[in-house]
Amino acid sequence: MRNTKLVSLEEAIRRSGLKDGMTISFHHHFRGGDKVVNMVVDKLAEMGFKNLHLAASSLSDVHAPLIEHIKNGVITKISTSGLRGTLADAISRGLMEEPVVFRSHGGRGSAIANGEIKIDVAFLGASASDELGNACGVPRSENAKSICGSLGYALPDARYASHVVVLTDDLVPYPNLPSGIRAADVESVVVVDSVGDSSKISAGAIRDSKNPRDILLAKSAAKVVINSGLFQDGFSIQTGTGGASLAVVKYIREEMINRGIKASFALGGITAHMVKLHEEGLIGTLIDVQSFDKVAAENIAKDPSHVEVSAVEYASGQHLGSATHALDIVILSALEVDTDFNVNVLVGSDGIIRGAIGGHQDTAADSALSIIVCPLLRGRIPCVVPHVTTLITPGKSVDVVVTEYGVAVNPGRPEVRDRLVAAGVHVVDIQDLAKKAESIIGTPDPLPFGDKVVGVVMNRDGSVLDKIYNIK
Amino acid sequence: MRNTKLVSLEEAIRRSGLKDGMTISFHHHFRGGDKVVNMVVDKLAEMGFKNLHLAASSLSDVHAPLIEHIKNGVITKISTSGLRGTLADAISRGLMEEPVVFRSHGGRGSAIANGEIKIDVAFLGASASDELGNACGVPRSENAKSICGSLGYALPDARYASHVVVLTDDLVPYPNLPSGIRAADVESVVVVDSVGDSSKISAGAIRDSKNPRDILLAKSAAKVVINSGLFQDGFSIQTGTGGASLAVVKYIREEMINRGIKASFALGGITAHMVKLHEEGLIGTLIDVQSFDKVAAENIAKDPSHVEVSAVEYASGQHLGSATHALDIVILSALEVDTDFNVNVLVGSDGIIRGAIGGHQDTAADSALSIIVCPLLRGRIPCVVPHVTTLITPGKSVDVVVTEYGVAVNPGRPEVRDRLVAAGVHVVDIQDLAKKAESIIGTPDPLPFGDKVVGVVMNRDGSVLDKIYNIK
Repeated sequence: MRNTKLVSLEEAIRRSGLKDGMTISFHHHFRGGDKVVNMVVDKLAEMGFKNLHLAASSLSDVHAPLIEHIKNGVITKISTSGLRGTLADAISRGLMEEPVVFRSHGGRGSAIANGEIKIDVAFLGASASDELGNACGVPRSENAKSICGSLGYALPDARYASHVVVLTDDLVPYPNLPSGIRAADVESVVVVDSVGDSSKISAGAIRDSKNPRDILLAKSAAKVVINSGLFQDGFSIQTGTGGASLAVVKYIREEMINRGIKASFALGGITAHMVKLHEEGLIGTLIDVQSFDKVAAENIAKDPSHVEVSAVEYASGQHLGSATHALDIVILSALEVDTDFNVNVLVGSDGIIRGAIGGHQDTAADSALSIIVCPLLRGRIPCVVPHVTTLITPGKSVDVVVTEYGVAVNPGRPEVRDRLVAAGVHVVDIQDLAKKAESIIGTPDPLPFGDKVVGVVMNRDGSVLDKIYNIK
Repeated sequence: MRNTKLVSLEEAIRRSGLKDGMTISFHHHFRGGDKVVNMVVDKLAEMGFKNLHLAASSLSDVHAPLIEHIKNGVITKISTSGLRGTLADAISRGLMEEPVVFRSHGGRGSAIANGEIKIDVAFLGASASDELGNACGVPRSENAKSICGSLGYALPDARYASHVVVLTDDLVPYPNLPSGIRAADVESVVVVDSVGDSSKISAGAIRDSKNPRDILLAKSAAKVVINSGLFQDGFSIQTGTGGASLAVVKYIREEMINRGIKASFALGGITAHMVKLHEEGLIGTLIDVQSFDKVAAENIAKDPSHVEVSAVEYASGQHLGSATHALDIVILSALEVDTDFNVNVLVGSDGIIRGAIGGHQDTAADSALSIIVCPLLRGRIPCVVPHVTTLITPGKSVDVVVTEYGVAVNPGRPEVRDRLVAAGVHVVDIQDLAKKAESIIGTPDPLPFGDKVVGVVMNRDGSVLDKIYNIK
């Protein structure tokens, strides 16, 4: 093979033409197990780069070492879907001069496609790649060290970045096809010890719940789905992260079997539950932008009707044809919902960033029915509030809120309310839910926000939705 | 589904924003059975468009109706890989004011990717599409009317065109996934009676040969392959169109079995022969930019290791990572080869355009060994000549020429010559082949070319390689 792509990380960076002030990008398919961001930014720091814009599809607790690189001026701007852990805490307290820009997954895809985010060099971890850069998130040899499944969030980067570096922990013989990342888009291939710890792809937000309240919420949400008017043969569904919204799948499965109903597709982060229904013939196609656990990742490796799609194909609001436009029902979680049905999934009620927008904005806006599953209280923290701390998903996109104290329906969806009442669902006014929370907890003190903007929340159309201020 | 993409052809054209002078594009996966080009250009003529640039991946005899549209000023510029039949004849005689621009498949891919060809509206025929535009060349329902297999030549158009219209003769429920053309790239979907006659995808240049001379040539070419030094476990191969080059596969199969050798991949136009070897385990992956017959088209529909790739991924010279860069051996045909090993596959020895560049330039340039299989004479027409009528593939890319009078090896490849001589191949000087042809036929009269340029032959790097003058 007449190939000069296979180089060290340092050489890949040199040949990329990266300069101070440019934009680098990463995907987060290994979630808490990711090893690429830290490895690459360490190397960039060592090579003396400064003032870089880090545009990741998301960041998590494992990226705490970025704090030092921010302090040293290597990274001066961050774009991401979310932040968690020590890094999120430090940024919430004012670590960075420039605010972090938060986008939804679809919003990031759109921004990359329309040039709003101009990626100079993408560093994309892959579980297998050949020497020319055909790369994927599934094992392709006996020597495979990792698996993350779909590389959907990396695909816009691969397509639109000026320069693409694939990092892999398993170099396999050409041709590594089929693969989502195609060699024609790749400039360099770097072999590394490990791109990620696959045991952590289902850690954190997407673990199964055994919490009795989550199970109660899931059963209630399933009742909403089943009586929504959309639960018909050929319907489609997405469940977000969060124990309750994932568990809903278990309960609607039973009713699908009872009624002889099949779903045309399931979308989004695909879970073991969805794979099970698919294998049982209850779901036609799995449209997978991110594999949420190892079962899903292993399934996409072998099942032609379990399809990898890019973030643009998944959820772009600027591409009519993204899958969310065909989505009937989405079940989502929330940190806070307010009495205007606005949702916050990013900033905790203590003012600290502790989440991610994900596909929340996108699926809520495009789906025929969006259902938020959320307890009234988490410990001493109210989740239904007069005003969300930070606006992530506008209330006009949110149709139903399921709590353990009843189900609230957006006044803009009277037909849904009527159907649920007729089915015996305990429908309540969202104002009453907020009052109930307040009656139990009392009115929380205002948060001690400062006047420094530490984060900007973008809407999926590219407009600014809200700002996050530093917390003292 | 909240979708407004599904419209009539006329409405699709209106909403595309197409204006006089713009560029429209088409693929040629239905070859002589294509119905899309004529249907769309008829409609454009009816709607009053003028002065359009038609950028097809190739054109054939079925497109003779374009002659009237050229005369009427609807089409004033053509870019294509090839021309055949009445249309080719008329253009050769000076029908158009502006020369036709001929590019290789890889060259067209590069030109679309780098903006040299700026497609305003792509009209892409598909055997199945859903309402959002996920579209493919294989059947996806019991109502399917057509099949063409890979849509590889349409994929650069889908990715880079400003506006994409999918035409399909089978609208299937969303999601039509996996599909090469993805909904996020598509603006309109038009349902038509027929996008193409699938019985003609293997018509013309790629039918199987029963000609005894072709079989002799094929056996000789197989001997060259087997003794080239590249015939080792894990080798890769592509065969072009032309009965002899296709038949080679049959003969090397036997030797692969004898020696216990397997190929890593076969590339290019994929044929039933290649599918057979693949199914026997003799070829690992089929990398398919165009399915050359129905067997290949049916196979790509069901076999995950039979992979659709775009023209860019197939053969771009400007994307290191196109599959040709990993190709060991290519077997190609020729209308003429000259004593400098230059090849002509486009213009007949009568000065009439009657062929296509295809992947000839691309595979010859990038492969480790390019083998031209070509009779010394076709009837009274010499095929080894002092100078090709039109330069399509430069001699420096051509390694071996196989004729029924012996095998000529490019002086730049002495190691190949030595191996073939050692293996008892009848190696001759190409000058002697040209003299032999001349001794049989005599020196042909010079062709009566005029001084009007009717075609420009581009090299795959975007430079001009040759010009074609009108024939009187």
